Amino acid sequence: AVGIPFIGALIYSMMTGEVTELDAPSIVELDETLKRQSTINESSPMRLRMEKLIKEHQKKIVDELSRIDGKEFHADTWTRPNGGGGISCVLQDGNVFEKAGVNVSVVYGELPRPAIEKMRADHKSFVGADVDSLSFFAAGLSLVLHPHNPMAPTVHLNYRYFETSDPKDPINGEKNWWFGGGTDLTPSYLFPEDAKHFHQTIKDTCDRHDATYYPKFKAWCDKYFYLPHRGESRGIGGIFFDDLDASFLQSSSSSSSNPQETLFSFVSDALASFLPAYVPIVERRKDMPFTPQQKEWQQLRRGRYVEFNLVYDRGTSFGLRTPNARVESILMSLPRTASWVYMDPVSGTRTDSADGEEQAVDETTEKERELMDVLRHPRQWA
Amino acid sequence: AVGIPFIGALIYSMMTGEVTELDAPSIVELDETLKRQSTINESSPMRLRMEKLIKEHQKKIVDELSRIDGKEFHADTWTRPNGGGGISCVLQDGNVFEKAGVNVSVVYGELPRPAIEKMRADHKSFVGADVDSLSFFAAGLSLVLHPHNPMAPTVHLNYRYFETSDPKDPINGEKNWWFGGGTDLTPSYLFPEDAKHFHQTIKDTCDRHDATYYPKFKAWCDKYFYLPHRGESRGIGGIFFDDLDASFLQSSSSSSSNPQETLFSFVSDALASFLPAYVPIVERRKDMPFTPQQKEWQQLRRGRYVEFNLVYDRGTSFGLRTPNARVESILMSLPRTASWVYMDPVSGTRTDSADGEEQAVDETTEKERELMDVLRHPRQWA
Repeated sequence: AVGIPFIGALIYSMMTGEVTELDAPSIVELDETLKRQSTINESSPMRLRMEKLIKEHQKKIVDELSRIDGKEFHADTWTRPNGGGGISCVLQDGNVFEKAGVNVSVVYGELPRPAIEKMRADHKSFVGADVDSLSFFAAGLSLVLHPHNPMAPTVHLNYRYFETSDPKDPINGEKNWWFGGGTDLTPSYLFPEDAKHFHQTIKDTCDRHDATYYPKFKAWCDKYFYLPHRGESRGIGGIFFDDLDASFLQSSSSSSSNPQETLFSFVSDALASFLPAYVPIVERRKDMPFTPQQKEWQQLRRGRYVEFNLVYDRGTSFGLRTPNARVESILMSLPRTASWVYMDPVSGTRTDSADGEEQAVDETTEKERELMDVLRHPRQWA
Repeated sequence: AVGIPFIGALIYSMMTGEVTELDAPSIVELDETLKRQSTINESSPMRLRMEKLIKEHQKKIVDELSRIDGKEFHADTWTRPNGGGGISCVLQDGNVFEKAGVNVSVVYGELPRPAIEKMRADHKSFVGADVDSLSFFAAGLSLVLHPHNPMAPTVHLNYRYFETSDPKDPINGEKNWWFGGGTDLTPSYLFPEDAKHFHQTIKDTCDRHDATYYPKFKAWCDKYFYLPHRGESRGIGGIFFDDLDASFLQSSSSSSSNPQETLFSFVSDALASFLPAYVPIVERRKDMPFTPQQKEWQQLRRGRYVEFNLVYDRGTSFGLRTPNARVESILMSLPRTASWVYMDPVSGTRTDSADGEEQAVDETTEKERELMDVLRHPRQWA
């Protein structure tokens, strides 16, 4: 998983310049030609199939969320001078969503030597590792939805494809490639039926491909979305994976004559399971009554979301340090509003002097304590 | 300035355990004995004098801020198993201050080898550098005040003293020591008279000690409190300095027969100038009328404050990664409330597609644009 920072950075950063010019003939030119000449189908390069997949899902997700909210998304489209580009769709101050962002980005660029070395460590038989720079392609769909209603959970999704070309023969040479992604739920109040539905929907999809996926990716998710300084998880998890390549498939229980096709099929299904996993939850929570105290609790939980994204999330922190990154798209993940209090009796970090106070039983905060218990001790939901 | 992360981490972290036991006779025992036996005076070790200074100022500042607010601070006192401890004073949801924290911490501990090497790079003739661990002492006062009224600026202050002992003779051997600190102002709306008053008060204090201090420390402050991903400063600055030791004094225009005394005197005066620098400003802004739009602008500016503290502030980020750190005291600096919007027309990060929109003239946001101009192009105020 050492490669995550780079993949995250490259995909989240959506740099808008300063990338080394590629030598012709390049995959950028090839892809542009292919897109002009014909429609994308199963015989097209995976780059173009992934781009098509995530753009289709972006549209489908945006349409469905607009229907739920009653307000349209605002779309920003941009292109990069050396190929690639992206579409950021954002709905702000909607009826259901306080802030919702659904971003696609496609990046053609050059990897520097340290990044190549880290990637080689994560992938057996890495092609073209002994060079000073390596052309890469990265395409991903990222989504974060923050609803108004504290009973409706925040949700995050990211699916991505990464590829590097053989420097000797960029077009026909052997390639390194892998998929990464996942989705996870962050409620302010725990509804076990929601947690079960979200996890079960994802698990069913995973199980159709490989019975080892869900347990493996669920554990990976719990490990990744964790705030060590708070001793708590960001939310109730979901799945998270990275570096899924041919070697990964060999080590898993299923065998495949076409690993890339097999994993693309899994990622396609995982992506398609997002709306069925999340929509029923937001539909049944978005109009629930809530008190000002519950709204305030949601704000504190959003403060934690900000802490995770700014302090620990590798995509965000590397993205912010990338020159010419599209900062607005990276920080789209931050909630519209958040708050912090010192020594909150329910969620405050335990300290010696506070232990006594924290033992106090308070009926009105029973639901908040329930959530904290799950965040401190992740459960199996499916 | 490479040493800043460590000093910051050590002081901000206020670790509550897991520190290597010190060999007896140690400076901890010496200091405890001295504190029992006599009052602290000019012949006491600097450790005890600094502790006394910052505790006196903490009390004075807390009393004055309580008077302004009309609500009392809540104080948490803690001790550490191997010596030292701290006092966190926090006023939350007050009449004037949404969140105000004034913390003192005193730490006795052991520096690991990499920290020693970084410190040696910052200090000429570093004593006892060829050891695997080095006993240190750190004491500091940290303060962050976030008022409710968007016309009243947020302010930050930190003054600290750091010392390491000669491993061969901890009590009577030669010591490495230095001071660090500063204070800076973060308004949501620019009042030039406030900026001038704040900077002039600090400059007057600096000038009484050395005419080179203010220009040097003002520039250092502008450089440190900067968000590269936004291309803007956190606020309108103030002063910031670190690693002020005997060598620093030699390289400055003034000479001194007792560098430690000279610098302690400067730090004492700098600390004493805080209330005169800030109080008149908050007094004249705290009851000004404001609109919901202005309150929302303040929330966006607070989002930037959160971004700086969680992404760039070395004390915060190292502190959060320190095992057993007192997280609540570290994160006391975060505002009570903050918000984020995608592509804010006034403060949004410039992107190719947004350039056109950003040129639009909007009368109601004239004051917000004025602030952004100062944050993008720091000015001389004194």
